[in-house]
Amino acid sequence: MVGYAFMGAAHSQAWRTAPRFFDLPLAPRMRVLAGRDPGAVKAAAERLGWEQTVTGWPELLDRDDVDLVDICTPGHTHAEIAIAALDAGKHVLCEKPLANTLAEAEAMVAAAERAAARGVRSMVGFTYRRVPAVQLARQLVADGRLGEIRHVRVQYLQDWLVDPQAPLTWRLDKQLAGSGALGDIGSHAVDLAQFVTGQALTGVAAALETFVTERPYPAGGPTGGLVAAPGDTTGPVTVDDAAVFLARLSGGGLGVFEATRFATGRKNALRIEVSGSAGSLAFDFEDMNVLQFFDGQDDVQGFRRVLVTEPQHPYIAAWWPAGHGLGYEHAFTHQVVDLVGAIAAGTDPAPSFADGLAVQRVLDAVERSAADDSRWTAVG
Amino acid sequence: MVGYAFMGAAHSQAWRTAPRFFDLPLAPRMRVLAGRDPGAVKAAAERLGWEQTVTGWPELLDRDDVDLVDICTPGHTHAEIAIAALDAGKHVLCEKPLANTLAEAEAMVAAAERAAARGVRSMVGFTYRRVPAVQLARQLVADGRLGEIRHVRVQYLQDWLVDPQAPLTWRLDKQLAGSGALGDIGSHAVDLAQFVTGQALTGVAAALETFVTERPYPAGGPTGGLVAAPGDTTGPVTVDDAAVFLARLSGGGLGVFEATRFATGRKNALRIEVSGSAGSLAFDFEDMNVLQFFDGQDDVQGFRRVLVTEPQHPYIAAWWPAGHGLGYEHAFTHQVVDLVGAIAAGTDPAPSFADGLAVQRVLDAVERSAADDSRWTAVG
Amino acid sequence: MVGYAFMGAAHSQAWRTAPRFFDLPLAPRMRVLAGRDPGAVKAAAERLGWEQTVTGWPELLDRDDVDLVDICTPGHTHAEIAIAALDAGKHVLCEKPLANTLAEAEAMVAAAERAAARGVRSMVGFTYRRVPAVQLARQLVADGRLGEIRHVRVQYLQDWLVDPQAPLTWRLDKQLAGSGALGDIGSHAVDLAQFVTGQALTGVAAALETFVTERPYPAGGPTGGLVAAPGDTTGPVTVDDAAVFLARLSGGGLGVFEATRFATGRKNALRIEVSGSAGSLAFDFEDMNVLQFFDGQDDVQGFRRVLVTEPQHPYIAAWWPAGHGLGYEHAFTHQVVDLVGAIAAGTDPAPSFADGLAVQRVLDAVERSAADDSRWTAVG
Amino acid sequence: MVGYAFMGAAHSQAWRTAPRFFDLPLAPRMRVLAGRDPGAVKAAAERLGWEQTVTGWPELLDRDDVDLVDICTPGHTHAEIAIAALDAGKHVLCEKPLANTLAEAEAMVAAAERAAARGVRSMVGFTYRRVPAVQLARQLVADGRLGEIRHVRVQYLQDWLVDPQAPLTWRLDKQLAGSGALGDIGSHAVDLAQFVTGQALTGVAAALETFVTERPYPAGGPTGGLVAAPGDTTGPVTVDDAAVFLARLSGGGLGVFEATRFATGRKNALRIEVSGSAGSLAFDFEDMNVLQFFDGQDDVQGFRRVLVTEPQHPYIAAWWPAGHGLGYEHAFTHQVVDLVGAIAAGTDPAPSFADGLAVQRVLDAVERSAADDSRWTAVG
Repeated sequence: MVGYAFMGAAHSQAWRTAPRFFDLPLAPRMRVLAGRDPGAVKAAAERLGWEQTVTGWPELLDRDDVDLVDICTPGHTHAEIAIAALDAGKHVLCEKPLANTLAEAEAMVAAAERAAARGVRSMVGFTYRRVPAVQLARQLVADGRLGEIRHVRVQYLQDWLVDPQAPLTWRLDKQLAGSGALGDIGSHAVDLAQFVTGQALTGVAAALETFVTERPYPAGGPTGGLVAAPGDTTGPVTVDDAAVFLARLSGGGLGVFEATRFATGRKNALRIEVSGSAGSLAFDFEDMNVLQFFDGQDDVQGFRRVLVTEPQHPYIAAWWPAGHGLGYEHAFTHQVVDLVGAIAAGTDPAPSFADGLAVQRVLDAVERSAADDSRWTAVG
Repeated sequence: MVGYAFMGAAHSQAWRTAPRFFDLPLAPRMRVLAGRDPGAVKAAAERLGWEQTVTGWPELLDRDDVDLVDICTPGHTHAEIAIAALDAGKHVLCEKPLANTLAEAEAMVAAAERAAARGVRSMVGFTYRRVPAVQLARQLVADGRLGEIRHVRVQYLQDWLVDPQAPLTWRLDKQLAGSGALGDIGSHAVDLAQFVTGQALTGVAAALETFVTERPYPAGGPTGGLVAAPGDTTGPVTVDDAAVFLARLSGGGLGVFEATRFATGRKNALRIEVSGSAGSLAFDFEDMNVLQFFDGQDDVQGFRRVLVTEPQHPYIAAWWPAGHGLGYEHAFTHQVVDLVGAIAAGTDPAPSFADGLAVQRVLDAVERSAADDSRWTAVG
Repeated sequence: MVGYAFMGAAHSQAWRTAPRFFDLPLAPRMRVLAGRDPGAVKAAAERLGWEQTVTGWPELLDRDDVDLVDICTPGHTHAEIAIAALDAGKHVLCEKPLANTLAEAEAMVAAAERAAARGVRSMVGFTYRRVPAVQLARQLVADGRLGEIRHVRVQYLQDWLVDPQAPLTWRLDKQLAGSGALGDIGSHAVDLAQFVTGQALTGVAAALETFVTERPYPAGGPTGGLVAAPGDTTGPVTVDDAAVFLARLSGGGLGVFEATRFATGRKNALRIEVSGSAGSLAFDFEDMNVLQFFDGQDDVQGFRRVLVTEPQHPYIAAWWPAGHGLGYEHAFTHQVVDLVGAIAAGTDPAPSFADGLAVQRVLDAVERSAADDSRWTAVG
Repeated sequence: MVGYAFMGAAHSQAWRTAPRFFDLPLAPRMRVLAGRDPGAVKAAAERLGWEQTVTGWPELLDRDDVDLVDICTPGHTHAEIAIAALDAGKHVLCEKPLANTLAEAEAMVAAAERAAARGVRSMVGFTYRRVPAVQLARQLVADGRLGEIRHVRVQYLQDWLVDPQAPLTWRLDKQLAGSGALGDIGSHAVDLAQFVTGQALTGVAAALETFVTERPYPAGGPTGGLVAAPGDTTGPVTVDDAAVFLARLSGGGLGVFEATRFATGRKNALRIEVSGSAGSLAFDFEDMNVLQFFDGQDDVQGFRRVLVTEPQHPYIAAWWPAGHGLGYEHAFTHQVVDLVGAIAAGTDPAPSFADGLAVQRVLDAVERSAADDSRWTAVG
């Protein structure tokens, strides 16, 4: 595994937990953790449960005891690591966003295709797909229970930047982060919509906004690659605080999207509501074990609050009895389960790098539309 | 009163009920109902409780015993009646939308201004403003409890056109109805956003959609002004089924709007969520006695589910004890209370015709943007 | 009508409104209001819309233009008025509780039976039965959609006595009010359970509690029949603040009941949850337009949030389009509709005085059990 | 660890996970798993991650490399193992219920007290206390935010026995299980109420019910210690399906309790609602990351939906960012954290065996009351 921050912790817990609850066809071993700072990476390996450490990710590629590289670093490093790993014959799990630029993402997809031809697998980490309620949503759409999709309304609402004194970090710098709310959480919103509906977004009309354009550097000065001019205690925010856009689905439906870090009181509200000709559904990650489902066939109609914790629901049989909810990191465990299953079965796991690229193309169209007076902009 | 369909029933109930629960400074009498068909208008008057009937609205203007004209007819008739009534010195309550065209709406505002100079009052019927929870929302924003407004997300979701066999009525004809979901329910969404935030929408980027472009005429043939070509059993839908748009508030916040008649399972879900720098709120008319309020000052934070039924809440003291909810038509009673109060006090009631025009200007910008590739379009 | 306080206002609004929305087979006229104080009753009649007034209810019985007597006075007066009215051949609508004592209630039932034999009808005002969601609940149970009833859990939660400085009124005096939360709101809870399940409560084990035993008289001194010893500024609370009891249904199910005026934050939360062998339902009057329904037959299971506002739902077709909710007083209008319908049809309306007596018998068993160490006590 | 079924899996995951997210003062090692069947225990150890196995729990007590015994076996075995382990100087974590009889529980408390005097710690597994929302509830009560507690209403609702063909297992046999819903889930309800309020239940009035008295043995015949008469395909249910009781709190408040396996549609609804003189709160485990809190001090009042996922909330800082919910097994991890912390600090962890005994005493009083015509029965 490369990287050991927030995502590294989630991935480690998943690798450790998956074989304890699921019958995996292969037994994963948490072999080597890679990071630049020798002391820090050793400490992280001990805490997160990795056997060994290296201080450069390229070392992983030469080792025979490494079959898979799990990339948990910031987005601008993904392309280089993933392409090298795939070309070295290592399976790759890469955190989202696939890359910070379209060109990088395209190169990664090309590498993934080359690798797949040799039986080497790749996957991008849109974990929200693997929340059981989201899987059930997808199944209901795929089974035709919603009929033709007329509308999706998707929001990813957080509030951690509401305070104008919240410090300037690398996530607010365009060079380092690529974009702001759009790439960080808007990418999840787009993938979720495309996954649940089984359709692509074909065009968008968008607006981006930065509400607070100048923020203080953290006490102690800039970190994580940020550089301040001498004497500066504040610096510019160069990414979007919020992104809103209209979209069209390939099946003709209309989409409305919003991603923001300024929705006071909403902590991690990734929400989707889908209106179809035969039924509807709604999901909010802040209530992640629940799917709302409206079936137009019912004689007594109402949105059903489905507590997605029953053995017949996706992934649940491996866990607890009905009514014993799952949490955030369980989706990462499911990701491991599906990835390991695909590797063993010799099939390509989803979401693929191509799926990741599809999301990037939407984000790119959003940025182009926003820069062009919100004019309707085709994706891709 | 002119007109006696759905809105006529709601207005009649309001005129009858207001003096029973509120101390009105003037005693309204339900004097004359106007309608074209003598038999139908007589029957309606009896059912709705009007003393007399006339078969032409102009007759109302000559009568000394008519002080106020309440216009409940379709939108394309509003301008003529309202202007004539105001010029005749009658106070006017006009249902929304103010008019079907900007030009008509502007003429109505001019008439209202002329009238106001002579102490004659006018008001447009955006009744959702008078739901107690909405009034409370406005108060909280006005009191600064939300801080700077960063986002509004507004939806008006209905589902009565989901069935492609739902019949073609005048509401689906552009000549008669002006527009579809946009004007009928999108207008409420816009007024609600402008009222609650106290800000104007200054620009939009929009898309309109008609999902079902051909529908059967009703059994028995076209009604309400529709004309079918000989032998035709179906006809074209010439208005939008759904409207979506991005918007900018005068204070710099971002808005996302959706109005649709294709949201399966949502019956009358007029929803608004406002995110401010200091707090947030959310409202859904399907749960009309409740306002969700998040106060960033709380030590233990969470959206409060405020049951807006307590004596200190707007309008409630006149009704029932705490916890005894109100229904849809109560807002019409509040409208009468406020209108009669303003007339007696010699002040101009709100929402004014100018407020109605402001909404029309937004709808017009939406239509222009949608026709121009969703390009950002200034309002007004 | 006799009495013109809170209930008088609700009944008046119902008599006035019913013929405007429903096709009644008879046309009610709001003829005479009876009350003791000539000035007060005149003012009330004007405000509530009654044509004439009298200062003694017996006068109503001699009038040929009075066909029905609507009793909205406190409970200890019900028996005398209702029996006299029925014996005089007047139909009677009597507010709940039917009476303050079992003996009175039994005499009223006897009078009602005598009257019914002569075609004179009687009804007791358990209006919560006529909330559309409650009617739908009853239909689902009657249709077997819940199977065998295993559990009912019923709560009626209010909080208006939480403040120990809330003044001592007649409602807190045993002589005048009969009991406290038990009779006032517990009676609704019992009737609701019996109505929805279609079963009787056959036995109870109960406890009563008075949390605040001494309260200040209102500023200005005791009112409404209360008498204070000279110089006393506070007086004793002689009724229960809260009542809790276990119960058995005639079909074998278990019930758990709670009625309290000390549930901080709950304003008028009359809640019922019914668990059956085939399905379940839940209702809370604080969300009165909604019925939660769980159908064990569903392939994708979850409680449906049924917005009971559609034309096919009970009473709704007479009102507004789907999604336009009703309020508290609509149930009173439905009561008038059903009562007038029964009178015209020559049938006995429900809930009958016998239904009211059945509730009284449960309350009596509760009081006996509470006084006997909570021992299980048969009803009746 | 002794036992490796449902609870064994939850405990193993907790031991494995705690040191990865929390800074523990001691490093737990998952040394030995004990079970009777050599093959089964070996397989379980491998799946659950234990280093070694033994086939008799007494072997654990002789080992120097075992400092703590974690008891996950059925209730009737708890006393023997726990007392022996404590007397052998091993710390003990014992699953609930503490024991199947009062006498056993009392002996366990005595052993715990002896052990504590020697610095040996013991704890009983009421894990629901360690859900962050429940901890926050306790804090709010302890901080006086609710004032005097007037009411608790507590329910533990499941539905896995609704089907009369659900098979007869050891859990439905009084000899093996002690009691039914009462001991299995009612014990959680009682502990939760006592923990959150900080008060003891002092008396109860109760009823027990078995709705389905005869059930089929599992295909393949009785298991888990059950014995069938020759040729019998069905056997008797000898425990309660449901338990309901009234209770009194030591502070004078009233409690209403219900535990059932027949609440169709409720999967694991452990709910508590507390009404105090200054505020109220509500919790439902089916929405386990949320606490409803009503603060009577608010100027705009309503139950706050507190999403208990923020760094300042109990236990959360060790996990994920705000809005990323936890699941069922996280409470077991918190249990390990608190237990290890107490051992290292040399303090007695809670809930103690005495707390477990306090719950048993309440259950005992419930059974005595139910057997005595629901008569009020003092606890202890």
